[in-house]
Amino acid sequence: MKQEGILYVVGIGPGNLEHLTQAAKNALESADIIIGYTTYIFLIKDIIMGKKVIQSPMKGETDRCKKALELAHKGEKVAIVSSGDAGIYGMAGIVYEIAQREEMNLKIEVIPGVTAAFAAAAVLGAPIMHDFAVISLSDLMTDWNLIQKRLELAAKADFVICLYNPKSQKRVKQIQIAREILMQFRTLQTPVGIVKNAQRENQEIFLTNLQEMLNYPIDMFTTIIIGNSHTKILNGKIVTPRGYQF
Amino acid sequence: MKQEGILYVVGIGPGNLEHLTQAAKNALESADIIIGYTTYIFLIKDIIMGKKVIQSPMKGETDRCKKALELAHKGEKVAIVSSGDAGIYGMAGIVYEIAQREEMNLKIEVIPGVTAAFAAAAVLGAPIMHDFAVISLSDLMTDWNLIQKRLELAAKADFVICLYNPKSQKRVKQIQIAREILMQFRTLQTPVGIVKNAQRENQEIFLTNLQEMLNYPIDMFTTIIIGNSHTKILNGKIVTPRGYQF
Ligand SMILES: C[S@@+](CC[C@H](N)C(=O)[O-])C[C@H]1O[C@@H](n2cnc3c(N)ncnc32)[C@H](O)[C@@H]1O
Ligand SMILES: C[S@@+](CC[C@H](N)C(=O)[O-])C[C@H]1O[C@@H](n2cnc3c(N)ncnc32)[C@H](O)[C@@H]1O
Repeated sequence: MKQEGILYVVGIGPGNLEHLTQAAKNALESADIIIGYTTYIFLIKDIIMGKKVIQSPMKGETDRCKKALELAHKGEKVAIVSSGDAGIYGMAGIVYEIAQREEMNLKIEVIPGVTAAFAAAAVLGAPIMHDFAVISLSDLMTDWNLIQKRLELAAKADFVICLYNPKSQKRVKQIQIAREILMQFRTLQTPVGIVKNAQRENQEIFLTNLQEMLNYPIDMFTTIIIGNSHTKILNGKIVTPRGYQF
Repeated sequence: MKQEGILYVVGIGPGNLEHLTQAAKNALESADIIIGYTTYIFLIKDIIMGKKVIQSPMKGETDRCKKALELAHKGEKVAIVSSGDAGIYGMAGIVYEIAQREEMNLKIEVIPGVTAAFAAAAVLGAPIMHDFAVISLSDLMTDWNLIQKRLELAAKADFVICLYNPKSQKRVKQIQIAREILMQFRTLQTPVGIVKNAQRENQEIFLTNLQEMLNYPIDMFTTIIIGNSHTKILNGKIVTPRGYQF
């Protein structure tokens, strides 16, 4: 009898194995085949030793998902890995979309993880705390006008704003425009936290504000958190009050 | 010589110990005193056996933080626990605010965790995936007009919307008004996921839509995720496409 296949879609957290959950570890350990982007495979190498590993480069997202689904459909125990949480700009959605289109009926289990914004927030202090919006500045698959509109409405709503994919080597204008939009609604002194490689090797942390933020290194391994109108800097930490009286 | 105190502010995830990170576990293990709301202490009882535990009821947030800070200031190793991520409507902010006001100079470390929305998303499928906003419907410490404004602007921006604190025994109107605001911008068929006790004992999952959502049980242990204009239901899962061609 064929064993029943399963596809685990695993969020491995920001990078450091310390921020992996037990459930994610269990899923990786129980899988026989691990599929993922080379960088993430490297981050979890110590817990997947001896397993069959299928690595692929950055752009191969849909191919990775197809491959993972096919193997699980054949009866294999497969884990596909995303950094952070797999349901936040990760693999979970495509997995379900392809499974449905290809009419593959198999067990899929998503294991949640610590997303980049929370990993960054923890080292910055407590910049989120209250209502917030998460926006990716990548216009590869999203219309730039929609992104601009979201930035504007999120700024107007006084959300704490977390920016993913703020800048890449080819994509440099977006963060400049984003800042200009935010400046229409918030003061130049609004605290901004920039974290590169949060909770990973070579972590870099910058506390700045809307005025100065572009003077700091920003790239595709960076998450940016912009405070709301009440956010302040206390003893070198960014803190958004929740409103308690004490 | 007095030992140096430290206060760990630990997000324990949605509840089930499986969704605790290794870093959170390490912090709890290295602390000598654990402080938290009774329910959370119960959830982690197996890993804090034999330690000094200070439990307090729901409303004692600021007292808990003060107590934790005082003990750490005296040189103790203390962990204060929040469910989910401590930086999302959790304890991290108050801890920094009180430390600053009381001029307590001590080591504070925030350990990020899996927040309720991601725990809920994982069991619903992949409802978030793209840009999203997180809004608490509790108007205990936030002006209800601001919450309404945020709901309206988040709906206009076509964010996936995650609602925390949707309803309590005394607070029942807010979720009705929130739904009315959302209906001005999204169709009645917009997928809605309701998850009670996500990744905990007695987990309940409901897939519904804006039209029907109020017919399901909603309380203070519930997180609600409302899709954006592209969100669909595929094979019993809520999926928001990210825009890949495949
Ligand atoms: C395609 S998204 C993947 C997000 C991931 N699924 C998550 O939940 O964190 C990639 C973006 O996440 C952010 N990111 C991921 N890991 C990070 C880290 N360790 N430090 C800072 N930013 C990170 C960066 O903004 C990066 O451009
Ligand atoms: C004060 S907030 C705390 C949030 C927490 N710090 C986090 O990051 O998940 C409490 C709200 O979180 C949500 N929540 C917390 N744990 C949950 C769970 N296991 N299942 C569903 N919702 C949960 C509910 O909406 C609840 O009213």
